[in-house]
Amino acid sequence: MNGLSTLDRVRVVLSRTSHPGNIGAAARAMKTMGLARLWLVSPASFPDPVAEARASGAGDVLAGARVVGSLQEALSGTVLAAALTARRRDLSLERLEPRAAAAELVQCSRNTCGEVALVFGNEASGLSNEELGLCALPVTIPANPAYASLNLGAAVQLMCYELRLAAMGQGGEPFLPIAPLPEAATHDETEHFFAHLESSIVASGFLDPAKPRRLMARLRRLFARARLEKEEVAILRGILSSFDAGMKNKQ
Amino acid sequence: MNGLSTLDRVRVVLSRTSHPGNIGAAARAMKTMGLARLWLVSPASFPDPVAEARASGAGDVLAGARVVGSLQEALSGTVLAAALTARRRDLSLERLEPRAAAAELVQCSRNTCGEVALVFGNEASGLSNEELGLCALPVTIPANPAYASLNLGAAVQLMCYELRLAAMGQGGEPFLPIAPLPEAATHDETEHFFAHLESSIVASGFLDPAKPRRLMARLRRLFARARLEKEEVAILRGILSSFDAGMKNKQ
Repeated sequence: MNGLSTLDRVRVVLSRTSHPGNIGAAARAMKTMGLARLWLVSPASFPDPVAEARASGAGDVLAGARVVGSLQEALSGTVLAAALTARRRDLSLERLEPRAAAAELVQCSRNTCGEVALVFGNEASGLSNEELGLCALPVTIPANPAYASLNLGAAVQLMCYELRLAAMGQGGEPFLPIAPLPEAATHDETEHFFAHLESSIVASGFLDPAKPRRLMARLRRLFARARLEKEEVAILRGILSSFDAGMKNKQ
Repeated sequence: MNGLSTLDRVRVVLSRTSHPGNIGAAARAMKTMGLARLWLVSPASFPDPVAEARASGAGDVLAGARVVGSLQEALSGTVLAAALTARRRDLSLERLEPRAAAAELVQCSRNTCGEVALVFGNEASGLSNEELGLCALPVTIPANPAYASLNLGAAVQLMCYELRLAAMGQGGEPFLPIAPLPEAATHDETEHFFAHLESSIVASGFLDPAKPRRLMARLRRLFARARLEKEEVAILRGILSSFDAGMKNKQ
C-alpha cells in the first residue's frame, strides 16, 4: 500500500448543494488530487448537464457519486469526519487549519484502515448546527476576515490538495503501528451511544426534552474530542444500561 | 508593517485567459485570501458580465484590474515572478511546489519591499515558452498524474492560500482571532469526578470493587484525551447525581 492509496478511503460529502456547477467543479477538483468518492446529500439538482460541463474530464467521479437523503447516511461507516465551517459557533470545538485537519484525517484512516469524510455545506448557509454536530473535526480555511467567501469548488480543491500532500508526506511505506491500535468506533456506533445517553438522562430527569438547552451538543463536543474507541463505546453503553436498570428495577 | 501587508505587493497575472468566468473566479479567490492586484494580459473578453457574476463579492478586484498587451508589461516593476506550469519543459529550471514558491515570493517581497508576481497561462495551452522564460520560479501543483487539469480559478485559489499562509507565517499575525478559551477543569475537579463516577457505577452494579479489572483506568484514559473543561465536569457530575438519585429514590 503506498501513501496515496489512503485517498481512496476519503469521502467528499457535499450537503444540500444549490448549484450543480459547483458539484461539477468539486468532482474536477477531487480528481486532480486523486480522490474519487463523492457523496451528495439532497442536492438541488443532480444529475445535471451543468455539473457535467464543469466536471470537464472528471465525469467518472460524477457518475460514481452516491446520492443520499441525510448527512447521517453519508457518514455511515466512516470513522472520522471533518466539517468545513467559516463561522464561529458558541460551542465549537477548537477549529483546525486545513493542513492539520488533512494530516489528522490521513493519519486516522491509515491507523484504522477506515473511511473518513470531508464535509461541505450549502453555498449560502453552510452546514447546520445539527450537521456540524455529527463531525468531530471543524475546519476553517484561513481567509480575509473582510471577505471569507470561498467558492465551494475552490474550497474542495484546497482541502483535497492538503489531503494529497498529507498522504504523500506519509507515503511510500506502509504504516506500521508499534502496537496494534485500538479500533475506532464507527459513526453509527457513536450515534447509538449519543441516543442512548440522551434517553438515559431524560429518564433520570437531568435533561428535560422540552428544554434541551444545548446539553446534547455540549456532550457531543466533549466525546468528539476524545475520539471514542469501539470498546469504549461498549463500556459507556454498559454503564448507561446499568443505570437504566438501577432506575427501572426500583420503580 | 504586519505580515499580511506583503500580500498588497503581490500581482496575480492571468495571461490570455479564454473564459471570462475564470477571471471572475480568480478575482473572488484572490479577495478571499486578501490579495487585490489583478493584471490581465490580452484577455479574450474583459470586462464581461460573466466575470462579474462569478466574482461574486469581489467586483472591486475586477474593477481595479489592469489590462495590458504582454506579460512583459504586466511584470514591469516586479522583483520576482513565479509561473504556474503543469508541463515539464526541456529547459525548465527545477520546479517548486506551491508552498516553497509562496515562501520565496513573500520572503523576496519582504526583503526588497518590491512587488512580486504569480503568473497563470491560458486554460488550454498554459504559458508559452517565451512567457515562462520571463519568470524565475516555475511552480507545479502536485496533482494526479492521470488528470492534472486544475481549473484556473481553483489554481489561483490554491496559490493565494499558500501566499496567505506564507505571509502569516512570517508576519506574527494571529491566524484566527483568539476566542476566550473555555476554562479547563483543575486536577482536583477531575479527580472528584472520577471518584464520583466510580462510586456511581459501583452502586449501579456495573463495577464490582472486588474485581475492578482495569475499568477505571480505561475511563480515565478516555476522559484524559478529551481534556475536560470546568463546566463539563459540572455537567457530568450533575448527570451522575441524577442517576444516583434515580436509583436511590426507588430503594
